[in-house]
Amino acid sequence: MKFGYFDDGRKEYVITRPDTPYPWINYLGSENFFSLISNTSGGYCFYKDARMLRLTRYRYNNVPTDAGGRYFYINDGGTVWNPGWAPLKTPLDSYECRHGMGYSVFDSSKNGLRVTQTAFVPIGADCEVNRLTMKNTSAEPKSFQVFSFVEFCLWNAYDDMTNFQRNFNIGEVEVAGKAIYHKTEYRERRNHYAVFGVNAPIDGFDTDRESFLGLYNGFDKPDAVLEGKSRNSVASGWAPIGSHCVRVTLAPGEEKSLIYVLGYCENPEDDKWESPNVVNKAPAQKLLSAFTTDAQVDSALERLKEYWNGLLSNYQLDSADEKLNRMVNIWNQYQCMVTFNMSRSASYFESGIGRGMGFRDSAQDLLGFVHLIPSRARTRILDIAATQMEDGSAYHQYQPLTKRGNHEVGSGFNDDSLWLIFGVSAYIKETGDWSILQEQVPFNNVDASADTLLEHLKRSFDHVLNNLGPHKLPLIGRADWNDCLNLNCFSKTPGESFQTCANFESGIAESVFIAGLFVAVGPDYADILRRSGLKQEAEHALCEVQNMTDAILKDGWDGEWFLRAYDAFGDKVGSRDCDEGKLFIEPQGFCVMAGVGVKEGMAQRALDSVHEHLDTEYGIVLNWPSYTSYRLNLGEISSYPPGYKENGGIFCHNNPWISIAETVLGRGDKAFSVYKKTCPAYTEEISEIHRTEPYVYAQMIAGRDAPRHGEAKNSWLTGTAAWSFYDVSQFILGIRPQFDGLEIDPCIPADFGNFTVERKFRGATYRIEIDNSAKKCKGVRSMTLDGKPVAGNLLPVCGDGQKYIVRVTMG
Amino acid sequence: MKFGYFDDGRKEYVITRPDTPYPWINYLGSENFFSLISNTSGGYCFYKDARMLRLTRYRYNNVPTDAGGRYFYINDGGTVWNPGWAPLKTPLDSYECRHGMGYSVFDSSKNGLRVTQTAFVPIGADCEVNRLTMKNTSAEPKSFQVFSFVEFCLWNAYDDMTNFQRNFNIGEVEVAGKAIYHKTEYRERRNHYAVFGVNAPIDGFDTDRESFLGLYNGFDKPDAVLEGKSRNSVASGWAPIGSHCVRVTLAPGEEKSLIYVLGYCENPEDDKWESPNVVNKAPAQKLLSAFTTDAQVDSALERLKEYWNGLLSNYQLDSADEKLNRMVNIWNQYQCMVTFNMSRSASYFESGIGRGMGFRDSAQDLLGFVHLIPSRARTRILDIAATQMEDGSAYHQYQPLTKRGNHEVGSGFNDDSLWLIFGVSAYIKETGDWSILQEQVPFNNVDASADTLLEHLKRSFDHVLNNLGPHKLPLIGRADWNDCLNLNCFSKTPGESFQTCANFESGIAESVFIAGLFVAVGPDYADILRRSGLKQEAEHALCEVQNMTDAILKDGWDGEWFLRAYDAFGDKVGSRDCDEGKLFIEPQGFCVMAGVGVKEGMAQRALDSVHEHLDTEYGIVLNWPSYTSYRLNLGEISSYPPGYKENGGIFCHNNPWISIAETVLGRGDKAFSVYKKTCPAYTEEISEIHRTEPYVYAQMIAGRDAPRHGEAKNSWLTGTAAWSFYDVSQFILGIRPQFDGLEIDPCIPADFGNFTVERKFRGATYRIEIDNSAKKCKGVRSMTLDGKPVAGNLLPVCGDGQKYIVRVTMG
Repeated sequence: MKFGYFDDGRKEYVITRPDTPYPWINYLGSENFFSLISNTSGGYCFYKDARMLRLTRYRYNNVPTDAGGRYFYINDGGTVWNPGWAPLKTPLDSYECRHGMGYSVFDSSKNGLRVTQTAFVPIGADCEVNRLTMKNTSAEPKSFQVFSFVEFCLWNAYDDMTNFQRNFNIGEVEVAGKAIYHKTEYRERRNHYAVFGVNAPIDGFDTDRESFLGLYNGFDKPDAVLEGKSRNSVASGWAPIGSHCVRVTLAPGEEKSLIYVLGYCENPEDDKWESPNVVNKAPAQKLLSAFTTDAQVDSALERLKEYWNGLLSNYQLDSADEKLNRMVNIWNQYQCMVTFNMSRSASYFESGIGRGMGFRDSAQDLLGFVHLIPSRARTRILDIAATQMEDGSAYHQYQPLTKRGNHEVGSGFNDDSLWLIFGVSAYIKETGDWSILQEQVPFNNVDASADTLLEHLKRSFDHVLNNLGPHKLPLIGRADWNDCLNLNCFSKTPGESFQTCANFESGIAESVFIAGLFVAVGPDYADILRRSGLKQEAEHALCEVQNMTDAILKDGWDGEWFLRAYDAFGDKVGSRDCDEGKLFIEPQGFCVMAGVGVKEGMAQRALDSVHEHLDTEYGIVLNWPSYTSYRLNLGEISSYPPGYKENGGIFCHNNPWISIAETVLGRGDKAFSVYKKTCPAYTEEISEIHRTEPYVYAQMIAGRDAPRHGEAKNSWLTGTAAWSFYDVSQFILGIRPQFDGLEIDPCIPADFGNFTVERKFRGATYRIEIDNSAKKCKGVRSMTLDGKPVAGNLLPVCGDGQKYIVRVTMG
Repeated sequence: MKFGYFDDGRKEYVITRPDTPYPWINYLGSENFFSLISNTSGGYCFYKDARMLRLTRYRYNNVPTDAGGRYFYINDGGTVWNPGWAPLKTPLDSYECRHGMGYSVFDSSKNGLRVTQTAFVPIGADCEVNRLTMKNTSAEPKSFQVFSFVEFCLWNAYDDMTNFQRNFNIGEVEVAGKAIYHKTEYRERRNHYAVFGVNAPIDGFDTDRESFLGLYNGFDKPDAVLEGKSRNSVASGWAPIGSHCVRVTLAPGEEKSLIYVLGYCENPEDDKWESPNVVNKAPAQKLLSAFTTDAQVDSALERLKEYWNGLLSNYQLDSADEKLNRMVNIWNQYQCMVTFNMSRSASYFESGIGRGMGFRDSAQDLLGFVHLIPSRARTRILDIAATQMEDGSAYHQYQPLTKRGNHEVGSGFNDDSLWLIFGVSAYIKETGDWSILQEQVPFNNVDASADTLLEHLKRSFDHVLNNLGPHKLPLIGRADWNDCLNLNCFSKTPGESFQTCANFESGIAESVFIAGLFVAVGPDYADILRRSGLKQEAEHALCEVQNMTDAILKDGWDGEWFLRAYDAFGDKVGSRDCDEGKLFIEPQGFCVMAGVGVKEGMAQRALDSVHEHLDTEYGIVLNWPSYTSYRLNLGEISSYPPGYKENGGIFCHNNPWISIAETVLGRGDKAFSVYKKTCPAYTEEISEIHRTEPYVYAQMIAGRDAPRHGEAKNSWLTGTAAWSFYDVSQFILGIRPQFDGLEIDPCIPADFGNFTVERKFRGATYRIEIDNSAKKCKGVRSMTLDGKPVAGNLLPVCGDGQKYIVRVTMG
């Protein structure tokens, strides 16, 4: 069942009924100011950091689920309604929500009044703009009231939800004309405030929640709106809000607009005040004046469209598969950008107050983002490298505002540092910017310890070699990529972190997954060394890669698939000898991606085992069979009910690993089939089962052992976005940046047909037309660049701003 | 304006309309299981620890404010309503909420159906019982449905409100007959579950919130109730709830009851399961079977009443002032018990996930509680003493479950340790249990460091002497009693703790308040030493008390009042030389209580200054003038808007200090006048201004500089309860335990009239009849014990279980 449709021409998903199976959201903003906005106009906004600088309040897991947002209430002669349907939920004559690239539009009508609410965060401005365009489609004149509503968060979202004995006393606002200023704590250590303005004369305002709503009312029964009268309340403590009341009169057929701006403003420490206790409003006035006319808003919307068209133009596919086109060209890239911006901080499943940025997460998110704005990827690489320890290990998380490692979680996730090599390789392959290797980067943010980024890569590689276990496989530490496989923790205390407790230095537990990752990144690392003039070290690295490969083949193979690990007692995890958890997805994906066992036939056997035991209608589950009871020696994985999350769930993040692994074997049909199963556009038709947005990936889909098999959770902020784009763009469609150029190496179903990719790469544009009349899955027979034959399948770097036509014939 | 009335005969406050100015709550439970319950049946429950073991979910600062609770929905032929009014808010034909001692009753009717919901936590059982008694008062037969509803919290309340990417996957329940089992995380490290049962056959059930309510509905529109049909949903992840549907048929005049039990159960680690993944239900069945009949419930309610009557009988007043009687006899003592149980953890202003127990808070709470259950006070003393450091300083907070000091906050609040002396003195005076001094108590919970409690007192006393400043006054450290006066912190970073940041060791900033506290507790401390055979040390202590008194008189006096402090630069705080914050309440109260400046006339001058500058219609503000801007050298106090909290608010906690100080001067009129201003029973008539419950104290009432002057906040969990009871019981009414007996020393208004106090003290009961026909404020002329004259005003310890008649004549 569908709840809307893709409008690819406008790069929008159009939701046609408001009661979607779960709130379907969009992200506004791509620089410093961000908003989450649901299909009923719920959500919140923040400046840079979802925990520390939250502008508006939102309550997660509330009843109803999605309560709180930027709301506009229409009181049209006693009929009250919202253009976003919620919170009033008055039945509308028409409703439509269009989520686009950095904007959302609600287009609704009731009783001959059509209201179009356009919400976006302009490029270059720290605010959310909401324009309401109102048209009288009836034959009679209309006079109605529009009440705006936002509820301010007292900045620190964690404090805001816990420390009421303080918070209920500190709320402060100012009202100056049409602008409402939220200035809680501005009197003390903050030099920032929020402003909420409208471009029309107001009939009244409210800034005190209780005065506006009534103590016993929900957002769906605001006293002031129902009575058609603002209270002109000035908040003093309790819960500050912003609400304007504007009366609008429209002749038949007439259309008018209102422009609302909710912004974040800072003042210099020594210029905070206009007069005692009156904030300096200069930055707010400047901000508001930038969005007072329709022309200004139109122009900002146009600029936003250009921004996104520009970004997305770096990779554009034209194939016979409409769903594939829209995912590759629009939604997957869009999600990659959001994931890069947000890491795992703020979605409808991530409260924005918990985790910092993940070291591993950020390095992986690069894969999907680096082609969009490489300069930001460069900064991110240097930021995360600075949280690495001198021994090569890494803080597992760091705080985005301070860029410091998170002491509470610490290090000990032994795959972390290898992802730095992965990310740096991807960055150099995209950009050719070898200079990054010579950047001076501190360890653990201690300036005196700074060394080159290249040295950081060496420490990363060596950290694995310095931490090998009894089978010469890498020690797992607290966990590897699978944060929930905790082989050294043995937690018995409820509520205790499974990752940070207890004796994580058994010196025994080993990870075959890290071994595969080591072999996968090793050749690139060696290449980086070689090209940096370190030939001997490069050879040594390749030698270690071979040793690791041998170790996997010797002690990491279980007969029909790769083992997952050895536990703290040296017992196998992910083996046919186990009672549960016999087979895990991760080492199958990564060992084959690394080429381990390909020539020996083990790779093919491993992937066949995946299809045989792990595959389901909705994707590939993480492990089989799911654990039915808690295992002290395995940790969090066994704490989940069977079929959810890392315990037998379809953890979408690693499905592309299998897809990529299939391309290594040249099995294009299988690679594409795996790709499609978790790809949202292909599950749009079963939205009532899938539940989360049909335009973005979710972290997890309930596995076959779960009562709700097929139900997705944790949409938007997941490494799945980057891995899926990496898979489809570089391995299935096969347009793959390499150190020396753009490799063309598609691996597709035989009946996939011809396709064209337009790819910007190091300053040139390549229009790559792929002819697969031969109906091959893999193999480039010949290739021309602007009509001239190219030997092999590597396009040279042209880098001159020109556009080139590339013709590729598979065969 | 009143929203109810006191029913003193039943020890109840009766709320007669549901839309009180703020949720007016009650506490159920006095042992391990606790519930908060509002006048509309909102709130939640937990086992022992409001953060770690929360049974039901509650969202603070929600919209509407008080959403979530134990709800009973009646669907009577399409008319749906709740006996507690909320969440449906259907207009009722009658409504009444009776908050009593450990129970609450909702008595409502609609369309000829009267429903009485009685909620309580039985003595000796870990559960909340709700009995619904339903009577058909119409002339027609009635058949209707009753739907119960609770929403389970996933135990750790902090995790529950933040970690959704995990929490939405782990919810698990079992339904067995009429009982619903909430067993999230029981599969792993928990050995406890919740059970929700009813004593009648059910028509259906729900355990999945969304199935019951609908994704887009609030608690006020539950689909299942409105449609009259349970979904029989079994939660798998998301939000587990418990709901039963029972159909009830009543002939005209007929009455039936339903008994609901929501309980906490534990199993031994090795006996958790009945069969694979099926919980061992033995403890639940035992619990449920204890409350299946009306007779069982009646008996449990009777036992609860006896329990409370027994406790309250330790101090009973009979005076001409009805309001005073009800506060002294019922509500103030009741609040003292709740405060002792909860510390500052869980109220409608304290979210239960923040602070641990305060060292200082707990020591002070003893003052109001020690006469109720001295054995629990003893345990508490030993617990807090064990968090003291070897140098005499103390952890400012500790965790109730682990009883360990809270490292995040640490120590450095230099008044803390003196409160230990205060608390121990109060305990010994109440009980005569000198053995407590010889208990071995560790420092900082390190067993090897254990020494006697007496040694702890010495370290406490000496810690002050070892930390004197330039004027020989005590160094303040991070703060003293006023946590918000931070003279050594200089915080510039938004969101940073004002207490724990920066350079708190200036070695300059001194507190006159701590000096007063030192002089106040010094004589008792010396007495304890003397009676422990340490005469020389006792003399030395008294000598130090004199030195401190001299230091206050020399450098702590400002001319018309006592100074508050010297800041980190040696500048005065709370002086006429200051531009703001010229006068502070704390040193005036404590120095005069300590007797400093009494004979010199300074004490009287100081209190007169308090009345002149700090007194308002609603109580005495903390300081004057309020700070209008942030002062880096003063800290959090100046972060509050003027008139709120510690910045010019009426911080009720210290109003009794002034009242007690007035009794030191013998000014009974003033003492009682101060007492009455913040006493809730006296502000009942202005409930629309006061807003919080008229039966319990609030922490703070907005001061005269606040727009909402007179509005109270943070009711229930405040040191105000203990201090007010200490004031009224020991100083105004003047029945004061001393080491050697019960001192009789009233200090009352001249026209107060005669009064009688019945006081249980060290095993005997004293009926103390006070004759003030002489219309004196203070002074006992003569006293008889069972007719025999007693010299002086100290009743001897009889301790033989007998009842004595004491006749006291003032004059």
